[in-house]
Amino acid sequence: MSVPTAPESAVVDLLGLVALGELLAFERMAADARLAPDLRRRAALSEMAAAEIGNYRRLADRLTALGVRPDDAMAPYVEPLQAYHDSTVPHDWAEAVTKAYVGDAVTDDFLRHIAGALHEPERQLVLDVLHESRYAQFAATEIRLAISADPKVAGRLSMWARRLVGEALSQAGRVAAADRGALTALIAQGDQVDVAALIRRLTDSHTARMAAAGLNN
Amino acid sequence: MSVPTAPESAVVDLLGLVALGELLAFERMAADARLAPDLRRRAALSEMAAAEIGNYRRLADRLTALGVRPDDAMAPYVEPLQAYHDSTVPHDWAEAVTKAYVGDAVTDDFLRHIAGALHEPERQLVLDVLHESRYAQFAATEIRLAISADPKVAGRLSMWARRLVGEALSQAGRVAAADRGALTALIAQGDQVDVAALIRRLTDSHTARMAAAGLNN
Repeated sequence: MSVPTAPESAVVDLLGLVALGELLAFERMAADARLAPDLRRRAALSEMAAAEIGNYRRLADRLTALGVRPDDAMAPYVEPLQAYHDSTVPHDWAEAVTKAYVGDAVTDDFLRHIAGALHEPERQLVLDVLHESRYAQFAATEIRLAISADPKVAGRLSMWARRLVGEALSQAGRVAAADRGALTALIAQGDQVDVAALIRRLTDSHTARMAAAGLNN
Repeated sequence: MSVPTAPESAVVDLLGLVALGELLAFERMAADARLAPDLRRRAALSEMAAAEIGNYRRLADRLTALGVRPDDAMAPYVEPLQAYHDSTVPHDWAEAVTKAYVGDAVTDDFLRHIAGALHEPERQLVLDVLHESRYAQFAATEIRLAISADPKVAGRLSMWARRLVGEALSQAGRVAAADRGALTALIAQGDQVDVAALIRRLTDSHTARMAAAGLNN
């Protein structure tokens, strides 16, 4: 069975959602860099942030090429995405790198899933904005260092990661509720996969990643 | 007369100073992006910020190649540079773009001046981290728009720009006072130019730029 391809409006919605996600992730990580214990780490999280804005530019340029103002495409998602970040402000360096680690990885899983339903050039664009693995390695190393310095931190960060995922799912529900139908249909990819199965798959990957960084789910 | 070339220690001091300047400018602009009146402008200031961190990486890599930990080279300048930013937190979008405009331009004037006293590869590196003119054009356009929307803004932003330069000169004095001699000698470039003349030259360029953006000095 062939995967139904995305209607134009769903592509615009998707690019707007991902572009705004990059823009807000940039701002959050850039602000969280101040929590770093030294300048080297402060710069490393700032570089992770800067990579997001490079991706934002590519997505915004594609929207413009499709004849859509990036601001218009992003507008429907400002409230839920901002609410996610406002409800998950990290209080220390370990929480900041855990948030970057979880957020990047869940975003990438979602993008890999959605790429299959897109035409070119959007398909390649979405694969191109996947995060570089060196950033995940940096974050995972920092999490493991924090735990080895104080084993009690593992429990606290595990709880923090669960809260991140819970808040993200809650805001994803608001995104879906605000959708005019096209984006949700694109995510579900016809009858290939249902949204519940996608969420289950994202959660399973998340659990494996948590374990890799020394956290439990 | 040949320009005396910089001793190794002065080069390390200079690279550390400029690298930290980029890192803190990144953080300030990234935070100020929240003041933007729409997502397009918010992204534009975030992109200006991201360019700074790319430059930071190049300077830090050069320090590492010279056998110096970037954190060690930057450490002497944390207090004065952080004090500059803490004393000049923008309160609205017009102040934020004015700060980016003034800060980038004064930094570039300083780097162009100092490049003449450096060996390769540092000479080219310092010229490479000059800011792209499209960022200055964006900032100047925003300043002019703010003034055309409300002519009274010109006076307020002119005063703000004077305060930025005043605070920068005051912190530059603290940098010079903390210097072990090599960096100040490098800036002065032997008897080619005295520091007072350099400051006069930087101030003259600043005045011309202010006028170009519709501000007075």
